[in-house]
Amino acid sequence: MTISQNSAVVLLSGGMDSAVCAALAIERGLEPHALTILYGQRHRIEVEAAKRIVSSLRITRHILQMLDLRMFGGSALTDDIEVPKAGCATGSDSEIPVTYVPARNTIFLAVALGHAEALGASDLFIGVNALDYSGYPDCRPSFIKAFQQVADLGTRAGAEGRPITIHTPLIDMDKAAIILEGVRLGVDLSLTHSCYDPAEDGLACGLCDSCVLRKSGFESAGVTDPIRYA
Amino acid sequence: MTISQNSAVVLLSGGMDSAVCAALAIERGLEPHALTILYGQRHRIEVEAAKRIVSSLRITRHILQMLDLRMFGGSALTDDIEVPKAGCATGSDSEIPVTYVPARNTIFLAVALGHAEALGASDLFIGVNALDYSGYPDCRPSFIKAFQQVADLGTRAGAEGRPITIHTPLIDMDKAAIILEGVRLGVDLSLTHSCYDPAEDGLACGLCDSCVLRKSGFESAGVTDPIRYA
Repeated sequence: MTISQNSAVVLLSGGMDSAVCAALAIERGLEPHALTILYGQRHRIEVEAAKRIVSSLRITRHILQMLDLRMFGGSALTDDIEVPKAGCATGSDSEIPVTYVPARNTIFLAVALGHAEALGASDLFIGVNALDYSGYPDCRPSFIKAFQQVADLGTRAGAEGRPITIHTPLIDMDKAAIILEGVRLGVDLSLTHSCYDPAEDGLACGLCDSCVLRKSGFESAGVTDPIRYA
Repeated sequence: MTISQNSAVVLLSGGMDSAVCAALAIERGLEPHALTILYGQRHRIEVEAAKRIVSSLRITRHILQMLDLRMFGGSALTDDIEVPKAGCATGSDSEIPVTYVPARNTIFLAVALGHAEALGASDLFIGVNALDYSGYPDCRPSFIKAFQQVADLGTRAGAEGRPITIHTPLIDMDKAAIILEGVRLGVDLSLTHSCYDPAEDGLACGLCDSCVLRKSGFESAGVTDPIRYA
């Protein structure tokens, strides 16, 4: 068991948001332990992207946690439901996209909390942001606040007065702001993967909601997207 | 995806508490989906016990969810730390036993919440009780209340006004009360497994905290413990 008072567990999916989140943890002087949860994604490409990001950011510890959620069903990201093309995946509070995985962030935060406690880490980072929480209930600031309570009450660390702090440094940022933050921090955004529905060769489709958000984010930020599209 | 308004997810470990909990869900007219989380326990005997209980209670759906927490370390239930014998595993709030698994109930409730949402279940049962919460931070009523908030805010069901209710029907019971409740409900307690450190042939050690609690519970309840000890 590694004990470090300056370490943080960072949930790292392989996408831009969590890569920027990890870079922010490093900028704050924390030693990040990257945690990638393999939840039966259809696209292992994300995991490969996470590995490249870990290497690029010189993160020394990368935890791959298996947690098969495919048996849940009910989500386009774990199931055989067709991934919707542009305009259907995010929206107002009343429009929860089909890419929503039941209780996903609750499960991810819970597993990350367990790792943080076991590692003696003081902090936990998750890259949820304003674009996410317009569509997914488990990205909203009120949800994160409620989970912090769970972390405070449900861990030995919390019970002993050393609560594990959950950070959401991207929570108020849109995609363009996240991209500019990534550029400022020197994150190699060419290593990140966003597409919900990539081609066989791994190229992003350019058409799913995640690709459309990414492309319009780069456009708004006035930055060239370094990845290739199919 | 099964949709049932009368179904409940019941966390079932193979121990007495969760077996009684499942019987209480049935008594309330709910259709239970038993959920056993395989978290790298050293003793698969628990899983076999869970299967026997499912069969005995005529539960039609039993979900076995793999979630390997062994990489956490730091707990006698997943690691090679010696299991303590009587008198060390429960106590006051300031004495958290070495059998504590980091954030275990947070993780279990999170996974159960995901299953409940995917199944369209309205209720979730966990057999935590007064004996547990004297030792484990994630069994306390305040923790359960905080997790209910997370469930309300972090699910599509909650966001759409159909929150999933977490039930802890044993929360104020001691072991004797749980045993009497099991007897009243006709639960076959001979099928349940409690020992933290069973012998090769599966017999309970009779010496670990869990066995000692069980034995004194039966004694207080004035009921004969139907299991054999090594």
